[in-house]
Amino acid sequence: MTQDNPLIDERDASFLLYEVFAAEALCRLPYFAEHSRETFDMYLHATRELARDVVFPTYKPMDEAPAHFAQGQVHSHPVLRELWPQIVALGVINAHRPAAVGGQQVPLTVHNLAAAYMMAANLSAFGYAMLTTGAAHLIEAFGSDTLKATYMRPMYEGRWTGTMALTETHAGSNLADLQTRATPTAHGHYLLQGSKVFISGGDQTLSENIVHLALARIDGAPAGIKGISLFVVPKLRVEQAALVPNDVAAAGTFHKLGWRGIPSIALNFGEEGRCHGYLVGEPHRGIQYMFQMMNEARINIGLHGVATASVAYHASLEYARTRLQGRAPGHKPTEPQLPIIAHTDVRRMLLRQKAIVEGGLALVIAASRYQDLAHHAETESERARASLLLELLTPIAKTFPAEKGFESNALALQIHGGYGYTSEYLPEAWLRDQKLNSIHEGTTGIQSNDLLGRKIIKTEGASLAALAEEIERVIAEAEKAGVDPADCERMRHALSCTRETSVFLIKLAVRDLEAALRHSVDYMDLLSTLVVGWLWLLQAARAREVLQRGGDRPFLQGKLCTAQYWLRNEVPRITALAALCQSNEDSYARMQDAWF
Amino acid sequence: MTQDNPLIDERDASFLLYEVFAAEALCRLPYFAEHSRETFDMYLHATRELARDVVFPTYKPMDEAPAHFAQGQVHSHPVLRELWPQIVALGVINAHRPAAVGGQQVPLTVHNLAAAYMMAANLSAFGYAMLTTGAAHLIEAFGSDTLKATYMRPMYEGRWTGTMALTETHAGSNLADLQTRATPTAHGHYLLQGSKVFISGGDQTLSENIVHLALARIDGAPAGIKGISLFVVPKLRVEQAALVPNDVAAAGTFHKLGWRGIPSIALNFGEEGRCHGYLVGEPHRGIQYMFQMMNEARINIGLHGVATASVAYHASLEYARTRLQGRAPGHKPTEPQLPIIAHTDVRRMLLRQKAIVEGGLALVIAASRYQDLAHHAETESERARASLLLELLTPIAKTFPAEKGFESNALALQIHGGYGYTSEYLPEAWLRDQKLNSIHEGTTGIQSNDLLGRKIIKTEGASLAALAEEIERVIAEAEKAGVDPADCERMRHALSCTRETSVFLIKLAVRDLEAALRHSVDYMDLLSTLVVGWLWLLQAARAREVLQRGGDRPFLQGKLCTAQYWLRNEVPRITALAALCQSNEDSYARMQDAWF
Repeated sequence: MTQDNPLIDERDASFLLYEVFAAEALCRLPYFAEHSRETFDMYLHATRELARDVVFPTYKPMDEAPAHFAQGQVHSHPVLRELWPQIVALGVINAHRPAAVGGQQVPLTVHNLAAAYMMAANLSAFGYAMLTTGAAHLIEAFGSDTLKATYMRPMYEGRWTGTMALTETHAGSNLADLQTRATPTAHGHYLLQGSKVFISGGDQTLSENIVHLALARIDGAPAGIKGISLFVVPKLRVEQAALVPNDVAAAGTFHKLGWRGIPSIALNFGEEGRCHGYLVGEPHRGIQYMFQMMNEARINIGLHGVATASVAYHASLEYARTRLQGRAPGHKPTEPQLPIIAHTDVRRMLLRQKAIVEGGLALVIAASRYQDLAHHAETESERARASLLLELLTPIAKTFPAEKGFESNALALQIHGGYGYTSEYLPEAWLRDQKLNSIHEGTTGIQSNDLLGRKIIKTEGASLAALAEEIERVIAEAEKAGVDPADCERMRHALSCTRETSVFLIKLAVRDLEAALRHSVDYMDLLSTLVVGWLWLLQAARAREVLQRGGDRPFLQGKLCTAQYWLRNEVPRITALAALCQSNEDSYARMQDAWF
Repeated sequence: MTQDNPLIDERDASFLLYEVFAAEALCRLPYFAEHSRETFDMYLHATRELARDVVFPTYKPMDEAPAHFAQGQVHSHPVLRELWPQIVALGVINAHRPAAVGGQQVPLTVHNLAAAYMMAANLSAFGYAMLTTGAAHLIEAFGSDTLKATYMRPMYEGRWTGTMALTETHAGSNLADLQTRATPTAHGHYLLQGSKVFISGGDQTLSENIVHLALARIDGAPAGIKGISLFVVPKLRVEQAALVPNDVAAAGTFHKLGWRGIPSIALNFGEEGRCHGYLVGEPHRGIQYMFQMMNEARINIGLHGVATASVAYHASLEYARTRLQGRAPGHKPTEPQLPIIAHTDVRRMLLRQKAIVEGGLALVIAASRYQDLAHHAETESERARASLLLELLTPIAKTFPAEKGFESNALALQIHGGYGYTSEYLPEAWLRDQKLNSIHEGTTGIQSNDLLGRKIIKTEGASLAALAEEIERVIAEAEKAGVDPADCERMRHALSCTRETSVFLIKLAVRDLEAALRHSVDYMDLLSTLVVGWLWLLQAARAREVLQRGGDRPFLQGKLCTAQYWLRNEVPRITALAALCQSNEDSYARMQDAWF
């Protein structure tokens, strides 16, 4: 049964790409000029087939037999050795990177949709590829030509893998306190010494070499985040065209709730004083470099959340269609039982998942499109506007799928009833996987402070004004397309509440920033609900237009029904959230340690 | 660190018992006349000490090494053999049962609070005791004297354990379709044949014998739930004072997300045609008997939810007090890092957990008190009123801790950051345990239909009217005690919304029951939020009164602050929920299979 899981609904993917976000229009931009709907579809098709037929069947075995540490080495699941060359052959590691570094210049709008299939198929297996891309991209953006030739190239070619080696035992959310040291030498390299934790893919038996992009503090550097530099620290370093052990030791693996197919490692650099690190870019700018990659990294986490919720949604839909239990009210016990999808409450749980999954996918693809436009739109003002919207959407695109996706995954398990609680079915595994997404790459609390503090208050509402224009345009389009005026009015009212709340908080921040930020998690909930409401209204408008042209009724009716669900069940919550954000509710602010 | 976990806050337990619910007053009732605050405290003390010192340390080992199936037998964790006699010696198996069956006649108000410590310490280990109590209680209530002497007694004495053997592969939420057959014999017993699944503790290496309380269909019985009878089906049956194998075979264990210390078993009855079952009570009344035990069973699940959230809350509180990370805004990186409890967002997550845990405990204890009064109050009218309120509160007491407890457990994990995602800490295990509580003993969907359909609509609002009186009395008390009038007004407004919504739905049900029940899960959310609001307002009133008498300030300030949190963050959501329940929002009702 699970073999038939579509992972991501195929019709939804093409609806989003072409009918909602007009991906073909991107091909008019010079950077994407080689592309067309045909090349997009080929890429999507190839990725989807591999994800469904080859990658997905490896998920359960990899979840059941996590990588283990033995003889100083982490042994990853043997199936990865067969899988990896096929993932590499697809070109996903650098498909969206420039031709100059071997890439295909595929828009992120398309690439991320393709990647979602791989993530839905096996988050951990694809994790090796994502981490490799991220690490290589840092070298591409900030590294010397030598580093690019020596380390970036084999990574983009999939011969070596990469990791991000940031976290230390006492420096997680707060990287300012990391202690790994880098001592300059006369030979140009640095000698690294320190320990890192939670390094995903930090050791394995998959690739010939592993390249860690590590943060460390050069001797004498200032304290805090201004004294942190970025280094390439390979497991094996290149010396005279040979690979030499670089004094990077795996110290053990963490036993994790989920993501069991990719090990999380404790790593020691320089136990023997012979760990070479190569500075990327300039000294003390490590955190800045990381920040420049942060939108991409965070949107990827959002994509994890959507993909993990999507595969579980489809499993629960299939289960609801085939599992027989109960009858309609008033029917005799001698009549056959019904598939549980016939029960309203089961459809409620399915529709809520669909609203979160497809709303979340629209959100991540919208953010991806702004990434494409921020870098490649033709005019400076178009790029600036896209960038403004991208900055605003990024913490939302990271957080909404993580938080609501977790709820969605719990519903998928719930639909499976008692069986859902067992490992005979996969929803329990996806629920375990999902939980990480509210933690890594900045917790929900950090994202919420970023959204309200940096994106709303610091821009004095400029990004929200741009978003409001987009929302107003969609409301007008929806009205024109014949969407229920009451639903359009709901969005208009919610937008007005949001503006009022934001203005209030921007003013409050001038005299009391802490008070303004107190309800940032509620503000995140508010703005996420609005943004997803906007994207559902947009989908409803497009669905109506396509229906009028005689489009595929069941799919489009489903879209309209799901939009209705979101606009009438979720969007009205905004009123209470707006009031809460504007209240001076200070319970947890004034709550003291001794009172707990 | 985890060894110091208080499991349930001791001061909160005594506050609830004596200051909020006046448990001593129960001792004026004849059934509880032997008791006093002293006996209550002795029982609580003994249970708490065993839970903390002996039971809790077994949780992690039992989670890590689940029972396994080998040679036709399920092998439970060896530590249970040491643990079990100590649990039995405490008397918890039948403490609340009458002296006539060896019990202590402890009020459920007290017993359930004591049980919460055991559940928080090790839900699975204590599960063996709870299931034994539940099964023995069924025999006590409906069985013959012979069954009581032969099977109930050894169970209440802890020599044998019990199970509930209800579920079959195609009969879970819908028991009407169960197929296990019972064929009468000339010797008084029946021959049973059939298969059961998800039987917790259905086989083990702990006790000499296991007594299954099984539902089955006597040959020729009517279809549906009216043809189901209840049987005692022991693993070993008593024949001429000897124990004889009874053709009950364990077919295997389910690998589960949580509750790993107690196996979930597939059982076969009568593979060799020699499985004796003994009818409990009259034929065809099995479901009725089960229903009469249902309040107790459901309140127990609520208690699981509260206990599992509580132990995790305390672990995260301890972690937040000791884990150093980050500084206050504007502080230099050379200053030492702060414990994370200093960060507002961490206190938000702690306070939300505290509100759910202590609000949920108050809810379950309130329901327990109504159980005591429904059975043992002096006048018929007092008993009837308690019974009405008990019926109303039961689905809420079952569901709120399961659903909000899951959120609370996720917050406990979140506070632990990356470490929370690993099994170095316990929150991930408790999160796994918690997920079952929204499924077993009636799913959240079933509880919500029960609440709105049976408890509100069918009583034509009588139970809500009784609840409203209680709430109004508490509002008046809170005003008198000096609770912020605005918070009292919030509750008054929420109550008025709730009444209006309920009246609307009762009327709607007359012409369209399905439409009335459509938002039953939202109605559950609404009424749970109100009920927990009522209990927080009650706690705030008592806290103010005790403060005025010079009570322990930090604890009471914490209570006031948490009440504020609930009344200002959660209770205002009721307005939107009320509007939603009264809207004709029909998205998932009209959503068709083909539209997904």
